[in-house]
Amino acid sequence: MVIVMNPNAAEEEIDQVMKSIRSLHFDVYRSKDRYRALLGIIGQPGEDLCSILEAMPSVEKIVPVSQPFMLASRDFKNEKTTFEVGGVEIGGEKIVIISGPCAVEGRESYLQTAEAVKQGGADILRGGAYKPRTSPYSFQGLEEEGLKILAEARERTGLPIITEVMDQHSVELVARYTDIVQVGARNMQNFKLLKELGQLDKPVLLKRGMSATIEEWLMAAEYLLSNGNYRVILCERGIRTFETYTRNTLDLSAVPVAKELSHLPVFVDPSHSTGRWKLVPYMSLAAVAAGADGLMVEVHTSPKEALCDGPQSLIPEKFLQMIAPLRGVAQTIGRTL
Amino acid sequence: MVIVMNPNAAEEEIDQVMKSIRSLHFDVYRSKDRYRALLGIIGQPGEDLCSILEAMPSVEKIVPVSQPFMLASRDFKNEKTTFEVGGVEIGGEKIVIISGPCAVEGRESYLQTAEAVKQGGADILRGGAYKPRTSPYSFQGLEEEGLKILAEARERTGLPIITEVMDQHSVELVARYTDIVQVGARNMQNFKLLKELGQLDKPVLLKRGMSATIEEWLMAAEYLLSNGNYRVILCERGIRTFETYTRNTLDLSAVPVAKELSHLPVFVDPSHSTGRWKLVPYMSLAAVAAGADGLMVEVHTSPKEALCDGPQSLIPEKFLQMIAPLRGVAQTIGRTL
Amino acid sequence: MVIVMNPNAAEEEIDQVMKSIRSLHFDVYRSKDRYRALLGIIGQPGEDLCSILEAMPSVEKIVPVSQPFMLASRDFKNEKTTFEVGGVEIGGEKIVIISGPCAVEGRESYLQTAEAVKQGGADILRGGAYKPRTSPYSFQGLEEEGLKILAEARERTGLPIITEVMDQHSVELVARYTDIVQVGARNMQNFKLLKELGQLDKPVLLKRGMSATIEEWLMAAEYLLSNGNYRVILCERGIRTFETYTRNTLDLSAVPVAKELSHLPVFVDPSHSTGRWKLVPYMSLAAVAAGADGLMVEVHTSPKEALCDGPQSLIPEKFLQMIAPLRGVAQTIGRTL
Amino acid sequence: MVIVMNPNAAEEEIDQVMKSIRSLHFDVYRSKDRYRALLGIIGQPGEDLCSILEAMPSVEKIVPVSQPFMLASRDFKNEKTTFEVGGVEIGGEKIVIISGPCAVEGRESYLQTAEAVKQGGADILRGGAYKPRTSPYSFQGLEEEGLKILAEARERTGLPIITEVMDQHSVELVARYTDIVQVGARNMQNFKLLKELGQLDKPVLLKRGMSATIEEWLMAAEYLLSNGNYRVILCERGIRTFETYTRNTLDLSAVPVAKELSHLPVFVDPSHSTGRWKLVPYMSLAAVAAGADGLMVEVHTSPKEALCDGPQSLIPEKFLQMIAPLRGVAQTIGRTL
Repeated sequence: MVIVMNPNAAEEEIDQVMKSIRSLHFDVYRSKDRYRALLGIIGQPGEDLCSILEAMPSVEKIVPVSQPFMLASRDFKNEKTTFEVGGVEIGGEKIVIISGPCAVEGRESYLQTAEAVKQGGADILRGGAYKPRTSPYSFQGLEEEGLKILAEARERTGLPIITEVMDQHSVELVARYTDIVQVGARNMQNFKLLKELGQLDKPVLLKRGMSATIEEWLMAAEYLLSNGNYRVILCERGIRTFETYTRNTLDLSAVPVAKELSHLPVFVDPSHSTGRWKLVPYMSLAAVAAGADGLMVEVHTSPKEALCDGPQSLIPEKFLQMIAPLRGVAQTIGRTL
Repeated sequence: MVIVMNPNAAEEEIDQVMKSIRSLHFDVYRSKDRYRALLGIIGQPGEDLCSILEAMPSVEKIVPVSQPFMLASRDFKNEKTTFEVGGVEIGGEKIVIISGPCAVEGRESYLQTAEAVKQGGADILRGGAYKPRTSPYSFQGLEEEGLKILAEARERTGLPIITEVMDQHSVELVARYTDIVQVGARNMQNFKLLKELGQLDKPVLLKRGMSATIEEWLMAAEYLLSNGNYRVILCERGIRTFETYTRNTLDLSAVPVAKELSHLPVFVDPSHSTGRWKLVPYMSLAAVAAGADGLMVEVHTSPKEALCDGPQSLIPEKFLQMIAPLRGVAQTIGRTL
Repeated sequence: MVIVMNPNAAEEEIDQVMKSIRSLHFDVYRSKDRYRALLGIIGQPGEDLCSILEAMPSVEKIVPVSQPFMLASRDFKNEKTTFEVGGVEIGGEKIVIISGPCAVEGRESYLQTAEAVKQGGADILRGGAYKPRTSPYSFQGLEEEGLKILAEARERTGLPIITEVMDQHSVELVARYTDIVQVGARNMQNFKLLKELGQLDKPVLLKRGMSATIEEWLMAAEYLLSNGNYRVILCERGIRTFETYTRNTLDLSAVPVAKELSHLPVFVDPSHSTGRWKLVPYMSLAAVAAGADGLMVEVHTSPKEALCDGPQSLIPEKFLQMIAPLRGVAQTIGRTL
Repeated sequence: MVIVMNPNAAEEEIDQVMKSIRSLHFDVYRSKDRYRALLGIIGQPGEDLCSILEAMPSVEKIVPVSQPFMLASRDFKNEKTTFEVGGVEIGGEKIVIISGPCAVEGRESYLQTAEAVKQGGADILRGGAYKPRTSPYSFQGLEEEGLKILAEARERTGLPIITEVMDQHSVELVARYTDIVQVGARNMQNFKLLKELGQLDKPVLLKRGMSATIEEWLMAAEYLLSNGNYRVILCERGIRTFETYTRNTLDLSAVPVAKELSHLPVFVDPSHSTGRWKLVPYMSLAAVAAGADGLMVEVHTSPKEALCDGPQSLIPEKFLQMIAPLRGVAQTIGRTL
């Protein structure tokens, strides 16, 4: 249950409401959105508490919520969340294409790819400056140099950029450069990082963890929302199963499920999930057909020389070829691209 | 490696070829297609054996195969397999819709549903007369009575029928009634049953096992092909993962993968995989977008009263509603429906 | 809920009880054990039905059961099931060792291995005459010839034998030779086969399916019990997970769980689960420590030449070496070996 | 391949060796242990490079390594790693028992539990001051207050303590109080955190991630070793599978596998893996039988009131009862407890 406070409720009034809740032995969690304080009551309070709260003038409304992720749920907010980043609307009618190489590997190659994917119809540029790698001996990213290249690409193409933040120490630095902050699958339950990003004034794209249930994914989003950041994009990127032909198993059912349970936009990453570029066009089409609000597609001008995840990267030409059928599928289901 | 024999090779000639192979210490497996004998050589024979075999007049050609599933592979046969059942082309340009309730529960209700799904555009009728149930205390199917109802529905609608065979003892009986024999997920590695069905003159729809890799699924198909039955449909129906919101996890990447590795048509069952009717239209669209050659969709006129799998069954109205967008997606990718 | 009938209840009396149950709209499933009829009521009947039934003289007792597997549950029968096969007590204080090669590959080699494992302390001989193989091109077993070799080994060693039945057609043949019938992991939900084996007068060892939950495994056992066969051994053999270093993931927690939920004896197969002989002694010790009532260990005199599963087979010497520590662990937890 | 430098090699000499390696187009990663510089060569260099390096006086030896985790491998260091923490030997003959509640919930209750587990034979005290929780609304730990209580418990009992560090910002604070730093399953691939802990002068217990392969787990350990911290304990705590009866599936095979591949000590957490206190004694015995070097067992004086993970906590009495059979199993396999 969420208590939505009046936007002009005073601190003492909020305190008073919290005291009333606690006096009936319920825990309460204070949160906020852009306009007002929100009080989440843990557990299922009865009629008595509701009557008391409804009578308080500082309370705007009481929203019963059946899911453990309160603020991320459709119960709390039924209309889809949309927001705008660098001129691109997220969660709207148009399906958003994020594209670029896995990692920023150098200035020339990145700028070249950025131009190519812009031509192809990309709305947002991606590229990792900090790379989470299984081995300490693998390429770990260009770090701030990479961020600068991303910023230059933004300037040249006019497209907003997204890049991953891997750790708390670099949140401030990454946020200084990027338009959207990405949280990788391995960090989906790095709760301290999520809390910090919840307090940041930047949208966050939250990848689903490799072994996270849909509910755990929405609970991770709740860490962002309950700390005040409502501009959250969910991104399905494959779960770990016994199948070894693909890198992971893309769980496309998670798209309509997450959209039914939550008001947040849901994107799909067909590159990391499959690990094979040949599958990317098929799974991109399928993702849009399943209702995805956006795609995150890896493109590299020479995948064989990529320092990271070459086998799953499309060459720009293949990326371009898949845009027309994607547009056809989008139109069929009443969307644009 | 597969040795394709001349259609008019005599038995002694075939024996002679097999002896030559064995004399170089390779195992050989004798198989056939509709026209001629096929000899599968186990292992990777060298130039010497190839030279000997090429010189034999009874040998039509030698096909090198890199996959363990020889006859099911694209190496062996590059063009897609298509065949016709009761006037319906399987594996062709048109996407095939199989529809009907999970189980045949009674004459009236089945005939009513059959008419409804025909109106909706179904090409083939489904319905289980023998049901594999986790509990011995659950409804186990109407058995032969169910088969008779299916046959009556075929007569009335003009649509061919598909039903599951659960065991060897009923192969003959089921085959007498049905147009396509279905092998359920739990029987995907019931190798003795597969061998019998390989010798049957009926097409077989082979569901992927819940924990089967794509390779194991194609190896199961190989049991059918190597026993002489080439009219095989692969059907993805979800794999078992840790996610509990859906009944299984529909692995749509398996569609383009299976089609890349094999010439066999690939269908998708969005009903059993998700276990929730609300997800069926989304995953049907996604399946077609991913390249599926057909769909197997459960429809029930009153899902709440279903004796089996009600929660995943669409009512006929919802089934009808999804046909138009399905057609749109099919056209976008150059197919029909 | 299970209604235990009096051993001398007449058919009409049983019919009368079933009618009374159905008159209150409950389904009832008629089963039996060695002594009397058992009536399983599906669902949770209330006080009214219980009162009626308790008043009927043909009813011996009413056993409330909270699990869907009624007859396999501890609710129905609290004391552990024990039985004797060829002089070996199953489910008793002594931990039972089943040993031998994966497949019977030839008379000489089998008899030699049989002698060796008998020396090592094996209680029961194993060996497959029918082998379920992923590929149709792999060795499929010696079939009846293999059964004869097993029978000869029994005669020579005095040890009872266990072998797998793969299909319905060979149930009778296999049962004629073997002392215990094994159902493999791939057949755990071959319900028609289970029903036939439920009517057989031979103990059955039921392996857990690769992707079966513990509940599904016990429900499969229920197919055997509800058809009248109570001499059932459960055998954990590893489940399918994302880990690739081992062939499967041995789920040893399933041992105490299955023993808590069910009265049936629980064995462990450390060979198939790990797929690596080096791990077999460790996992055998762990299985006994976790409470397993028996082990099924593959031993082969020359694993490198094995036609099937060589890498997981111990040589007899290694098998012998692990017996002493196994005995130590058994004694520590109050058992013998 | 690892180049072990002479302990007294000068910086210029090390530089010279690195230059030689790079001149043949190999990447080299500089690391160290307590005594000298270590140079890990990425890839498989040939005879030519080895000859050059062997001739250099600053090179002590060249160690060929077949695994991607170089420093953690048995190739690099064959003898088991042992070290001492607060008077307790880790990785030695004696099996080490870590015990205490999941979270530090209050001073009185913690000190009481600490005394109880010490009586029971615990060697090290555990307790979370920072708790990673799926929900932002769940108890998140007492933070520094919890660390102070842990320190007080150490003083009173004389036992060293272990507690989890969840984020980079609190590394310094946690390290000031604790004897061993724990990295939780969700942070196993928090690579930035691992790098920091690699530079810390405290032993680290690294839990296996819920969906991490054994190789990925050892690669995570490699992040610690390659940054200079060799006092690493691996801890298996269950992996995520489809089975829902237990919280996770304890993968005990991982114990002998990790010990075969690596020289690092391997512990087992039977509490988090099973999620059920009734299973803890069985799985503790099994873990020791499988070769675990230590156990991490949750004990709570009143599990029903626990703020975190009550259902998996033993009461002190049950903890005491399992020590004697544990000792028996340990002795059977030549160890002590």
